[in-house]
Amino acid sequence: MYGFSTAGLDDFLKRAIDEDIGTGDITTNATIPQNKRVFGRYIAKDTGVICGMDIVARVFDIVGGDVVLEVFMHDGDEVKKGDVIAEVRGNAHSVLTGERVGLNLLQHLSGIATRTRLAVDAVSGTSARIADTRKATPGLRAMEKYAVRVGGGSNHRFNLADGVLIKDNHIVAAGGITAAVTAARENAPHTLKIEVETETIDQVNEALSAGADIIMLDNMSVEMMAQAVKVIDGRAVVEASGNMGDRDAASLRTVADTGVDIISIGALTNYVKPLDISLKFSFID
Amino acid sequence: MYGFSTAGLDDFLKRAIDEDIGTGDITTNATIPQNKRVFGRYIAKDTGVICGMDIVARVFDIVGGDVVLEVFMHDGDEVKKGDVIAEVRGNAHSVLTGERVGLNLLQHLSGIATRTRLAVDAVSGTSARIADTRKATPGLRAMEKYAVRVGGGSNHRFNLADGVLIKDNHIVAAGGITAAVTAARENAPHTLKIEVETETIDQVNEALSAGADIIMLDNMSVEMMAQAVKVIDGRAVVEASGNMGDRDAASLRTVADTGVDIISIGALTNYVKPLDISLKFSFID
Amino acid sequence: MYGFSTAGLDDFLKRAIDEDIGTGDITTNATIPQNKRVFGRYIAKDTGVICGMDIVARVFDIVGGDVVLEVFMHDGDEVKKGDVIAEVRGNAHSVLTGERVGLNLLQHLSGIATRTRLAVDAVSGTSARIADTRKATPGLRAMEKYAVRVGGGSNHRFNLADGVLIKDNHIVAAGGITAAVTAARENAPHTLKIEVETETIDQVNEALSAGADIIMLDNMSVEMMAQAVKVIDGRAVVEASGNMGDRDAASLRTVADTGVDIISIGALTNYVKPLDISLKFSFID
Amino acid sequence: MYGFSTAGLDDFLKRAIDEDIGTGDITTNATIPQNKRVFGRYIAKDTGVICGMDIVARVFDIVGGDVVLEVFMHDGDEVKKGDVIAEVRGNAHSVLTGERVGLNLLQHLSGIATRTRLAVDAVSGTSARIADTRKATPGLRAMEKYAVRVGGGSNHRFNLADGVLIKDNHIVAAGGITAAVTAARENAPHTLKIEVETETIDQVNEALSAGADIIMLDNMSVEMMAQAVKVIDGRAVVEASGNMGDRDAASLRTVADTGVDIISIGALTNYVKPLDISLKFSFID
Amino acid sequence: MYGFSTAGLDDFLKRAIDEDIGTGDITTNATIPQNKRVFGRYIAKDTGVICGMDIVARVFDIVGGDVVLEVFMHDGDEVKKGDVIAEVRGNAHSVLTGERVGLNLLQHLSGIATRTRLAVDAVSGTSARIADTRKATPGLRAMEKYAVRVGGGSNHRFNLADGVLIKDNHIVAAGGITAAVTAARENAPHTLKIEVETETIDQVNEALSAGADIIMLDNMSVEMMAQAVKVIDGRAVVEASGNMGDRDAASLRTVADTGVDIISIGALTNYVKPLDISLKFSFID
Amino acid sequence: MYGFSTAGLDDFLKRAIDEDIGTGDITTNATIPQNKRVFGRYIAKDTGVICGMDIVARVFDIVGGDVVLEVFMHDGDEVKKGDVIAEVRGNAHSVLTGERVGLNLLQHLSGIATRTRLAVDAVSGTSARIADTRKATPGLRAMEKYAVRVGGGSNHRFNLADGVLIKDNHIVAAGGITAAVTAARENAPHTLKIEVETETIDQVNEALSAGADIIMLDNMSVEMMAQAVKVIDGRAVVEASGNMGDRDAASLRTVADTGVDIISIGALTNYVKPLDISLKFSFID
Repeated sequence: MYGFSTAGLDDFLKRAIDEDIGTGDITTNATIPQNKRVFGRYIAKDTGVICGMDIVARVFDIVGGDVVLEVFMHDGDEVKKGDVIAEVRGNAHSVLTGERVGLNLLQHLSGIATRTRLAVDAVSGTSARIADTRKATPGLRAMEKYAVRVGGGSNHRFNLADGVLIKDNHIVAAGGITAAVTAARENAPHTLKIEVETETIDQVNEALSAGADIIMLDNMSVEMMAQAVKVIDGRAVVEASGNMGDRDAASLRTVADTGVDIISIGALTNYVKPLDISLKFSFID
Repeated sequence: MYGFSTAGLDDFLKRAIDEDIGTGDITTNATIPQNKRVFGRYIAKDTGVICGMDIVARVFDIVGGDVVLEVFMHDGDEVKKGDVIAEVRGNAHSVLTGERVGLNLLQHLSGIATRTRLAVDAVSGTSARIADTRKATPGLRAMEKYAVRVGGGSNHRFNLADGVLIKDNHIVAAGGITAAVTAARENAPHTLKIEVETETIDQVNEALSAGADIIMLDNMSVEMMAQAVKVIDGRAVVEASGNMGDRDAASLRTVADTGVDIISIGALTNYVKPLDISLKFSFID
Repeated sequence: MYGFSTAGLDDFLKRAIDEDIGTGDITTNATIPQNKRVFGRYIAKDTGVICGMDIVARVFDIVGGDVVLEVFMHDGDEVKKGDVIAEVRGNAHSVLTGERVGLNLLQHLSGIATRTRLAVDAVSGTSARIADTRKATPGLRAMEKYAVRVGGGSNHRFNLADGVLIKDNHIVAAGGITAAVTAARENAPHTLKIEVETETIDQVNEALSAGADIIMLDNMSVEMMAQAVKVIDGRAVVEASGNMGDRDAASLRTVADTGVDIISIGALTNYVKPLDISLKFSFID
Repeated sequence: MYGFSTAGLDDFLKRAIDEDIGTGDITTNATIPQNKRVFGRYIAKDTGVICGMDIVARVFDIVGGDVVLEVFMHDGDEVKKGDVIAEVRGNAHSVLTGERVGLNLLQHLSGIATRTRLAVDAVSGTSARIADTRKATPGLRAMEKYAVRVGGGSNHRFNLADGVLIKDNHIVAAGGITAAVTAARENAPHTLKIEVETETIDQVNEALSAGADIIMLDNMSVEMMAQAVKVIDGRAVVEASGNMGDRDAASLRTVADTGVDIISIGALTNYVKPLDISLKFSFID
Repeated sequence: MYGFSTAGLDDFLKRAIDEDIGTGDITTNATIPQNKRVFGRYIAKDTGVICGMDIVARVFDIVGGDVVLEVFMHDGDEVKKGDVIAEVRGNAHSVLTGERVGLNLLQHLSGIATRTRLAVDAVSGTSARIADTRKATPGLRAMEKYAVRVGGGSNHRFNLADGVLIKDNHIVAAGGITAAVTAARENAPHTLKIEVETETIDQVNEALSAGADIIMLDNMSVEMMAQAVKVIDGRAVVEASGNMGDRDAASLRTVADTGVDIISIGALTNYVKPLDISLKFSFID
Repeated sequence: MYGFSTAGLDDFLKRAIDEDIGTGDITTNATIPQNKRVFGRYIAKDTGVICGMDIVARVFDIVGGDVVLEVFMHDGDEVKKGDVIAEVRGNAHSVLTGERVGLNLLQHLSGIATRTRLAVDAVSGTSARIADTRKATPGLRAMEKYAVRVGGGSNHRFNLADGVLIKDNHIVAAGGITAAVTAARENAPHTLKIEVETETIDQVNEALSAGADIIMLDNMSVEMMAQAVKVIDGRAVVEASGNMGDRDAASLRTVADTGVDIISIGALTNYVKPLDISLKFSFID
């Protein structure tokens, strides 16, 4: 469902739960009776896009102990302040144990989905897609890339294995763009496209001639990007990159209007304002 | 050194490296000769506090293959745009393999140290300490809390096991503050202090009478915080909490000026602007 | 329930089961038909306090294959020779596979609970609590500390992270008790109490002046302990320590009668006579 | 060296270290300067057999940070009160971090070796070997069985996979000793001997006729054991078992004098008095 | 059931699934609706012995998502081309995710069972058993040895711990067969038989005199094997070994006819033709 | 070097070593003195291509204990019967412990490299590359794909994440080739090529029109393949697949002569004859 294996997710969540519980929830153990039950509401305290409800549920599954999560707003739904996102019912010890890990992830992933949606809306009507990068939080990449998709964005390559991206370093080491693309075509699996990072129109031309499948325009001005798109003229996919996270909606729109196919933004995953969501309990018995 | 075990750090870094490499760095393998060597410089592109250099070095150790990192700016040092933080030399494949994981962590942790330093400076000269919370990134908590210390902040409890923090939920379930504190004193290890979350002066008074060691003032106005500090009058440690991350330096100062001992800020670790640091290579042979 | 995460428990039990089964139960596989069912009784062969029944059940859950454990004597219950503690029913292969791991743990933990109960009874009516130490079996600490609680004892700090205990070594390295306590107050989380190990009345006085929250009386005579309690006079928690496991009930009582708050005993967890419990089967079909 | 893989040992020690350190040694971090160095002596406080010095060294290796252990008394050496077993030198943080895990294991394993040596000495001059059982501490079995060997004992099967031991349950389920032995010979690997547990001379006779390679005399009187040995007359290995740990040296000798080949004692590993060993530090600079 | 612990199997399968899915099944995610359901048939495309159906089912359990496997041909059943082995029904994403890992293992294990059955049939009517060796695929040994049993073969020792096999190297190092056997009897657990590898009749005689329990005839001609069997005359188990995988049925029969007890064949597990099995789907809705 | 992370390789090798050693090498421990040293030669007993020497060395590193491997024939080198591939020197216990795991992998990987080289030679001079598939041994895929490259072959996608391969099932579920390709282009990362499996010329035409980047010709006759190549005429990469492992060199050549770009062969990794390599020791002292 998330595009990553359940086994991997569970291992991650178990580690996160262990990290947060340590050797036991001293406060809850000391102050709350073993069989106390609790009812709680997840409520949005800001406008945004929800992402991570299944992960919240999975945290409670792993913690164990008969907790039921009833979800009203699903991944991808937009919420506004005061919306009830979900209700949780169950043993107070179990709920309190899983609360923080679930909330931390829910707020972070919803923050990513919200930020992505804003960027996607900014370029709506153009041919540009919004994509993420490898600037993700170590350990959370699969979840973060899922959140980007939930926000309406596209994923760039997941890791160094599922995409050939020839950067300036590779170009220097290989002896030029043409040599690097040739070597990549010779040695990389035939299932992967070959992308080349360029900083000038000359490099764009060389990449095109060498047969690059994707051309990244790195840190170019909007004018140069427009020129590059004309030069490429549909013969390769065009990706705009470089501090795109610093641009507001209007500025992002000017990039999209140059005709690029992809705008990749590192800040989608590495500078994230968590969506404010509260969880308040009442005790049932 | 980081206040967490090396074994745990290595496991984390191995998973992060695996996550980023996947089944192999296709581009580097395809375009760069096996024995090529590289030289690179980590350069600050913004003002901030460095944190994570040993982690960058450890990433290269784990990746293996004869990489040497020479560090000029150490954890806690302040950098400005253009400062050379470190130099790296070694096999190009090894350096390129470890580059992104190291950079992602270095930028994130330096962002935390930088943000913490700002808050610490804002309250300097008062008796208040800046502290973090449990709103940390799942999997990175130990590192993030280290970064808070590097920035000059203090750590709140690490997890649910090393501090008794009686929140509103525990109070309701236990039947009031007095009952909750009594239960905690009875059942929790005698090595832990007992902290109580309060929202009114009445609650502050009840917590004091019950014998709380620490009293948290949650989401109170600056005026109410000042009143609470007077009421408590040194009989318990006083902690201010609640959206402290939204306050600028001057506003944070007004909180510190009330005489609280601790100001805890979730945003130190859950809304982090990475410190911009670049790594540019040249190839040696 | 045990004050430690289920995930951690399961990992431990899986390793223990693997350790005991290795590559397969050759004898059972070779001699008992696949679908044979078994009925068995856990019977106490000595007087003691039961601890670990949920762990026995969990072992069978992990081994799998439709085993039901019906428990008559629960954790904390006192048994005498001949009491039926529980009955087990299910597939013979599953029961025989999980038998030894469950029994080893049940006997060990019940041994700890039994030993703790004896010590608790010895000081009953005084203000002293019986506590454990870090002299636990590597890998079993969480379970062993749970057994101490089941026996009526209290837990000392779980590990080096959830309590500040300044020992002789720290005192020497820091340049004296006052310097060490000051450093601890400056650098440790404010949620932790500060404990100081003392061997003389002079050290007790210095620790008090430095503001220690807990004072450990290490290897003192009963007379000196009594004097220390008077000196401290309620201004700190007082803990008696040092070969307490060598004392019989009457001798332990004399320690408690000095007015100490805590008596910590390493032998509760590191010199344990297993409670003798047998498991005898009959085959159902 | 220990008869178990280094990889497995390291994983165990890493978990044990994590268990003892948790999220960091708060006291040492707060009170001892980062570069302080320490010198310490492991000194025997009782008579016994040393076991586990390589494990102590390995703990320091895993903790890291330039610690050197100089060992004077090696595994198997007998010590008396006051003997210097080893000296340790290195960074104070590293030494204090690894101290407790190493000591807990050293004392436990030396306790096993000491207890085994006593039993071995008790039967010296007879043809009987002292052996352990599967009543070992979950997670420590390999180390504990190594300690038995260091004490001069022999190992029984390690787990359910490397020995066929037909107990009363298997006999009932299989329909008798003859049927069980026949099934075992048919289905088990030909590399394993077949052992049968017997409680009467009739059972001994049946086991012999069925072709058992080893006959266990379970909970028999010394007289019956002597009779069984005569009956068996060298046609099978003879093992005495059942509460052998309750016997003192003289009583154990009477068992050995019956002519049995093996005396297996569960208490060697499940009721262990740790050998008292102290570690005292002085700080070097 | 498989003679190995379920926990170990699950860990293996999780790793195998992760290996095959990586960061997600891009094709299925991109082209097949989330709730699509599928029906599929496993059909034999060749003659052979089925092995691994429970593993196929377990793969789907681990992948999750409501997949039901209905099995018609169970482990050990012989199939011919066109036979329907099983049917699978469930969520298309789940089925496609688990398909390849399950099939790879099913075909490999069925290949082993098929190959073993051929060898077993070849020696049927003689007293010889067919056994495997340690020439197994790293990571799959437990499953492969299970497949050998399913095919009617016997297992040799599982690993270096559950059998004493004195090879030429050990003989040289120990100073001869007699010395090696004596040392083994002295030091190895009494539950294990002692096997000696021999290449000449002289060695056979020495092994016999030394008291070897099993004598391996390594790379001997059929004539020499026959002579060895006569010499041994029932005083030890006799195992024929050495390139037995190169022999066809008739040739294997000549070996069995010499009267050896065991014929061990490395190729059963290290040169395996997968049994051809197809899985074809239709979509239900 | 192998195109997979060292951390992953080490984990795999540790598990493999544990699997082979179990709880200890009983025979070596019992018969060979602790400090005995050994010298051995790896000798080819057949013609083939070497692959896995670094893995053999890594096994000895992990086992530990001062073993040196001197390698004469490196990965990719062709050997003939009698060639000395490498020499090993070191502690006898260490060498014997690592021997079997290293040999099993070396023979298996060299078998793959040898088989691949034969196929590569068969199509030499044509434009066709030889590629592997996902029919790899669970757990060994990275190593096996490395062996294919060592043999001169190319790797197909590593797993389900790094290539879009639309098979018959996806086509049916998506409602046709055109719909499937459109969905893939919409939803999959732009860094991946889109491959479509076809069985008829009509399907080839539809895939071409839909814009497939790669067209797989599945189980087509040589004649139909030739026709398909003409139809495609350079507008997509062409891959021949389906029981290619059953073809001998001449038959494979006829496939290559049709002008296909890739011939993918499952048998390269799932039906492997190990290259026969012996390791014979002499003892040094």
